Order: sequence, then structure tokens, then C-alpha cells
Amino acid sequence: MTSEAPTRAYRRLSVEERRSQLLGAALSLFAQRAPEEVSLDDVAEAAGVSRPLVYRYFPGGKQQLYEAALRSAAEELEQCFAEPPEGPLTRRLGRALDRYLAFVDQHNAGFSALLQGGSVVETSRTTAIVDGVRRAAAERILSHLDVEKPGRRLRMTVRTWITAVEAASLIWLDEDKQPPVDELRDWLVDQFMACLVAGAGRDPQTAAVVRGALALESADGPVGALVRRVAPVIGDVGHLL
Amino acid sequence: MTSEAPTRAYRRLSVEERRSQLLGAALSLFAQRAPEEVSLDDVAEAAGVSRPLVYRYFPGGKQQLYEAALRSAAEELEQCFAEPPEGPLTRRLGRALDRYLAFVDQHNAGFSALLQGGSVVETSRTTAIVDGVRRAAAERILSHLDVEKPGRRLRMTVRTWITAVEAASLIWLDEDKQPPVDELRDWLVDQFMACLVAGAGRDPQTAAVVRGALALESADGPVGALVRRVAPVIGDVGHLL
Repeated sequence: MTSEAPTRAYRRLSVEERRSQLLGAALSLFAQRAPEEVSLDDVAEAAGVSRPLVYRYFPGGKQQLYEAALRSAAEELEQCFAEPPEGPLTRRLGRALDRYLAFVDQHNAGFSALLQGGSVVETSRTTAIVDGVRRAAAERILSHLDVEKPGRRLRMTVRTWITAVEAASLIWLDEDKQPPVDELRDWLVDQFMACLVAGAGRDPQTAAVVRGALALESADGPVGALVRRVAPVIGDVGHLL
Repeated sequence: MTSEAPTRAYRRLSVEERRSQLLGAALSLFAQRAPEEVSLDDVAEAAGVSRPLVYRYFPGGKQQLYEAALRSAAEELEQCFAEPPEGPLTRRLGRALDRYLAFVDQHNAGFSALLQGGSVVETSRTTAIVDGVRRAAAERILSHLDVEKPGRRLRMTVRTWITAVEAASLIWLDEDKQPPVDELRDWLVDQFMACLVAGAGRDPQTAAVVRGALALESADGPVGALVRRVAPVIGDVGHLL
């Protein structure tokens, strides 16, 4: 079907496998430099395949490669938030964040380049892909809150937290991955619970979610630790009651 | 100095005033359609001036106009967070948010287009301008927290909240400006205080900030109201202690 004479190694991979291999190579390159500085030739070299092969998979050139890599990263990021609906909410969030932050850690600058935009290959289409990840992540988190039809306030809380997770990840990369990833995860879980609790004051649905979530938490879990650490700081709020 | 024969109305404005007028017209247009769909001719028409005049101010064309409008919006947004260091923290935040949300309200889609990116005229330079607004806003908020040298955790808390404010504003525009702007402001203030309190559990500097901030709050202020509303929801945390 092709004029190229494939080596035996080429034949071993299916079309899908080959595509994954090339996207993996592209993502590794995006982790080292800006998308617009990654050429199809670079991808060929990184993947150890011929240039025509890469051009065959991405006839649209650099832009097509970037979008395909972004889509592949988006799918992977969405999967990070897939978590069985079992156990305390903070444990579920913690596990989702472990996967998400492992992705951030692995892709380094590539994560920033892919998600932060500011690349000359950014278009409204790539922005839509990134926004799709945020929405999908929010939907998955909402599904863990055990509400039939999440209202505006609950959705706003979850969506702003997703943005905060993204911003914190970018800051974390910017600051040479400090604090340690486990601390960042715990901090993000604490922030989510705090935002949820604050939201409970103004929204009966959020209040119901908080009551349900707290009932599943235990003294030796993250919320127990948070309550014990925060109580002495805000102990003296007599003048506010 | 120019071959154009200016009318009397033209002469009345200084270079700076003229520039402001043209940027104002551009910002109004960006509020109605995407930056790449706004031409210099459109700006001339909206400002009621001749096309050559607009081209004289923005010889770099559409991209220069967009960047200048972005810079002008960035300066205005940064100013929103300028607030005298007096009174309770929640009042200061509330006033800053009132100005910020008024800007969002006024510029509508232009705010999204300018700050969200995803425009074909987006470049690493425009992203740097937007990021500059976020950093400047964070610095201003930090200056209200009364700490000599804000540490990593406090900075992270403030920077992620700034992102949350931006995300909430975009969602608010997307949802036809619901809830009412005052409610959104109060919600954002509550969220900030909640994030600060949660952060106090893990960071002595944040704990000191929380203690100092709470001391200035009163029972009839936002924190007093928050505490009274949230207390019944989390009343039963005996199993977490």
C-alpha cells in the first residue's frame, strides 16, 4: 500500500500502536520544549522511525501532531479522575489527584505547554480540548458527591477547584516540584473540603453533600487531621458568634 | 505632520486621549465578538474617526491593537485590586471583587476573549500579559495579609484563589450572569477565607495570618455570618476528633 519499505520492527505495530508510539514520542518532546519548536522530523528521530512514516500519520503537519498529542493527553488526564464510588470522599479525591499529579510530574513542561496555551499553535480548537478536560474532570468529581442533579453553586465549587488544581500544578512545576507531591495532594484535598464546607453555608444541596461526606470520614482520615489542626487556630471565634 | 485633514473634534484630543478612545472602542467590540473578527476599520467606525487615523495609531494592525487593548485591560484589572490596607480583610477583598466583577460585567465576552485565550491572535506575549495580571493581583492580595515575606504555601493559596476568581467570572458570564453579582462576590470571599483557614492547618505563617484576620472581623461581618451558617452543617464532627 505504500512506497516505503518497512523494516521488520515497523511491521510489528498496528496502526493504533504506531500512532500511540508517535504521540508518546511527541509528548516527551513537548515536555522539553515548546510545541512550535517540535517538528515532525524531531518526532521521527525520537521514535526511531523514518520521516515519511511520521508524515503519513500526520499529513496535516505540526498542527495536526500537536492537536493529536493534546487529545491523547486530554484522554489520559480525564481517566485520572475515574475512580470507583467507594469509601470516604477524601480518599477518592486523593487517589484521583495521585494519578493527575503523576501525569504532571511525568510530562513536566509538556503539561504546561499543552494545558497553559500561549503557544503559537494554540487555536480555539485546542482551547476547546483543554476546556473539555476541565469539564470532564468536574463531571467525574460531581458524580462522587452523590447528588441527583448538581445545582449551580455545587458545580461552581467543583469547577473552580479543578482550575485551582491546574493552577497549583503549574505553580508546582514552576517551583521545581516543591512541596513534595504528597503534600501538594493533601493540600488540594483540604482545599476542596474547605471550599465545600464554606459553600454549605449558602446552599442546602452543598450542605447535604457535606453532611454525607463527613459521615464517611474517620478521625484518622484527612478531614479528622484537618479539623484537629485547624481547631486551635480558629479556636477563639467567640466574638464572631 | 500628517496628510490627513483632521476635523475640529479630532484636534481636541491629545495623543494619549485619542489612544484611550480607540482602545475603549476596541474593547467594546471585543465584548461583542472574537478579537480576530475585529478589524481596524471596525474600530474606526465605532470610534467615529477616519480609518487612516486608526492605522496611524496601530500601524502593526490587528495584532498590535489586540495587544494594546489587552495591556489596557490588564492595567485596569490590576487597579481593581488596589485597596487601602484598612479594616477587616473580607471588606477589602469584597471591595476589590466589586471592582473586578464590574469590569467583567462591563466587558462581557470581551473579558473572556481577552483573558481566556483561544484566539488566533494569542501568542506567548499576550499570555505573558494575562499572567502578569494574575501575578499582580496575587501580590496585591498578599500585601493585605500583613506578612513580611510570604512563604510558598501562602502564595500558593492566594494564586490558586486568583485563578478561581477568574474561572468563576468566566462561568458567571457563561451562565448569563447568575447568581447575582453580590452573591458571587460574597461566595468568592467565603471561599478565600475557607482556603486560608484550611491552609492554616499545615503552615504556621498562614495560621498567623488567619489569627490576625479573624481578630479584625466582627460578628455582623462576612466571617461572622459564614461561621453561623456553617456551624450547624458541620456540628456533628465528634467522630472526627
